[in-house]
Amino acid sequence: MPKISQKGLFMPQSPIRKLVPFAERAKNNGVKVIHLNIGQPDIKTPQIALDAVKNNTIEVLEYSRTEGSETYRNKIAKYYEKNDIMVDASDIIVTTGGSEALSFTIGSIADTGDEIIIPEPFYANYNGFATAMGVKVVPVVSNIDTNFALPPIEEFEKLVTPRTKAILICNPGNPTGYLYSKEEIQKLAAIVKKHDLFLVADEVYREFTYDGREHYSILREPGLESHAIIVDSVSKRYSMCGARIGCLVSKNQEVVKTALKFAQARLSPPTYAQIASEAALETPQSYFDEVKEEYVARRDLLIEELGKIEGIKIGRPQGAFYCIVELPLADADDFAQWLLEDFRVNNETVMVAPAAGFYATEGLGKNQVRIAYVLDKESLKRAVNILKEALKSYIG
Amino acid sequence: MPKISQKGLFMPQSPIRKLVPFAERAKNNGVKVIHLNIGQPDIKTPQIALDAVKNNTIEVLEYSRTEGSETYRNKIAKYYEKNDIMVDASDIIVTTGGSEALSFTIGSIADTGDEIIIPEPFYANYNGFATAMGVKVVPVVSNIDTNFALPPIEEFEKLVTPRTKAILICNPGNPTGYLYSKEEIQKLAAIVKKHDLFLVADEVYREFTYDGREHYSILREPGLESHAIIVDSVSKRYSMCGARIGCLVSKNQEVVKTALKFAQARLSPPTYAQIASEAALETPQSYFDEVKEEYVARRDLLIEELGKIEGIKIGRPQGAFYCIVELPLADADDFAQWLLEDFRVNNETVMVAPAAGFYATEGLGKNQVRIAYVLDKESLKRAVNILKEALKSYIG
Ligand SMILES: Cc1ncc(COP(=O)(O)O)c(C=O)c1O
Ligand SMILES: Cc1ncc(COP(=O)(O)O)c(C=O)c1O
Repeated sequence: MPKISQKGLFMPQSPIRKLVPFAERAKNNGVKVIHLNIGQPDIKTPQIALDAVKNNTIEVLEYSRTEGSETYRNKIAKYYEKNDIMVDASDIIVTTGGSEALSFTIGSIADTGDEIIIPEPFYANYNGFATAMGVKVVPVVSNIDTNFALPPIEEFEKLVTPRTKAILICNPGNPTGYLYSKEEIQKLAAIVKKHDLFLVADEVYREFTYDGREHYSILREPGLESHAIIVDSVSKRYSMCGARIGCLVSKNQEVVKTALKFAQARLSPPTYAQIASEAALETPQSYFDEVKEEYVARRDLLIEELGKIEGIKIGRPQGAFYCIVELPLADADDFAQWLLEDFRVNNETVMVAPAAGFYATEGLGKNQVRIAYVLDKESLKRAVNILKEALKSYIG
Repeated sequence: MPKISQKGLFMPQSPIRKLVPFAERAKNNGVKVIHLNIGQPDIKTPQIALDAVKNNTIEVLEYSRTEGSETYRNKIAKYYEKNDIMVDASDIIVTTGGSEALSFTIGSIADTGDEIIIPEPFYANYNGFATAMGVKVVPVVSNIDTNFALPPIEEFEKLVTPRTKAILICNPGNPTGYLYSKEEIQKLAAIVKKHDLFLVADEVYREFTYDGREHYSILREPGLESHAIIVDSVSKRYSMCGARIGCLVSKNQEVVKTALKFAQARLSPPTYAQIASEAALETPQSYFDEVKEEYVARRDLLIEELGKIEGIKIGRPQGAFYCIVELPLADADDFAQWLLEDFRVNNETVMVAPAAGFYATEGLGKNQVRIAYVLDKESLKRAVNILKEALKSYIG
């Protein structure tokens, strides 16, 4: 029998993959599972986007342009302008989700054996895309005690080698919910300039910032034009994860030209999804105001309720819709499985994402879980209560 | 300025990319350009597929399942069964186009520096996906004088090294239009078994076989279960290239499990496109009969008209909708550009794909072009006439 590849063997699995069968078994036994583990918002997709697809007049569903349609890219550029990010259509490649933008970015800037430094915990699939491309993720630890703020820049310095090609950040962060300050971005700008590295920022949660804090995009930082690459997506912004549209943005035309070659190989991004995404740009501000208000209310409730549980630590999120919770136990993996297998309150249980999967350093995050607050407040409240009772029972 | 990757530098460009600005300039000057260069069918997408999307009732456009929805995969399995390919839903991963299935396949079976043998001329993007994954394409030459039939198996034998992981074929072929016989597939089966390789078959043109010839899928060949991987797509079958749906099919569960890890990293295939693709499976047979009749008529016309041109050679296509034409000149690249820049008949010209881009061996195919017959017969006839006049003028 022919053998699969080494990179295939080492492709990381999703942090929750192991738990899925247990969740399914619970459901098959009539147990209600409250999902705190996923980043799939329950928010309604803007009607204007849904309608655009329903009203399409396509007769031959053709390939679109490799880099996305001219009109759509022009409109994206206008969206960025409104966000103080000055780019043209020619700086943008429309991709199949932020996922593909990540994949094109890594392929365009790093070869087999090259290294990308990423603060951990990080979005687990960064490791997947890097592994697929033969690239090594070099983690730099951020800490729950500082809400996962940017690690001291000396920690990055220590990790730079001749193979280092980039620093990759997620801002605001999944799974941390941390929003980097302007000062932090400027520190990163200085180090990537000093060592001639790329700075890749996954800004798919750009809109989700709370408490009056403003998002500072890497492309707002003057002088970073040759270094900055933004990964973006419509998935969370408009609650249209199933569209599969994102983009890669850079003022570095070598990067855009190179990413375009990767894009050409796969021909084009999905057409219906582009129709939805272009229309979504017309979503009224009131939609975002409501969504943000809802997320803030959920976060506040979550933090408040979690705060009542003894012995846990919470990374207070300022953006996105995740937070990391440190539990008074040794093995969150086991706890998460036990929740699904053995623990119920009124025939309900919760599913959480063990956080070890968001760390590249072996051994870190083993007592942490990630909670996504993409559920209505009522369910969230019940979920935290279940967690509280479960901890008592599990530890006791 | 930070540097892009070596693989980015070496990513092949599309064979027609260089010509695009010339085509655009011609159009801007009011010249009509007949496109013989693209694989985008002009055939109408089945109404049932278009309607399914228009009538969707989605309110939250969620991620679908990573491997594609259960119902859709079950229906795909039934489709295969009708084509004498016995597979289950669990052997299928729905992908974002055949493109992504190719990418997942290469990543799952080959590491950096590994080799995949491919008969040339071949679909140019195979080289793109291989380059992106750090994998080397090893070409084996097929010849216009045999209509690009399978090269003698000894030629493959000569190229097998310890790094060879697979043989990849396209059946029926783009750009050759060649349909492999059962005997040829059996020869390939024997060699992959002998050397413990994978056999990857890109069967995206499965339906497009002519003159009563039957397609023999690699998964119809008994005993090939551990070796065979099919790459498939709805793009051409239902003239829905813009959907971006395909699949990877294998009875080798290690392969499916590994490809699934690559799939997990990118979360899910596009939702609207899956709705269209699932509905497309209900397309009535009459649709295919008509489409096939149309392609046969176009091919016949094309071959007949081309046959009237002196000094050219044609690879007679038995499937897909391409053919390679060998011209009595040294540099088809230059000829193709000259057509767009300088030659007009009644203010019309044609755009062809220079074939060198479909060869990996430097120097091959320089006097060949690929013609796609995805145009109505009237345009095809005018196009061939323009070619004929152009050749006279170019050579004379
Ligand atoms: C931080 C981050 N980046 C990128 C993605 C990829 O999303 P998509 O491919 O749907 O745009 C996600 C999805 O959860 C994410 O959380
Ligand atoms: C031989 C072959 N394979 C694969 C593809 C990829 O098509 P898609 O990604 O649209 O399924 C094409 C497209 O032209 C092709 O010709």
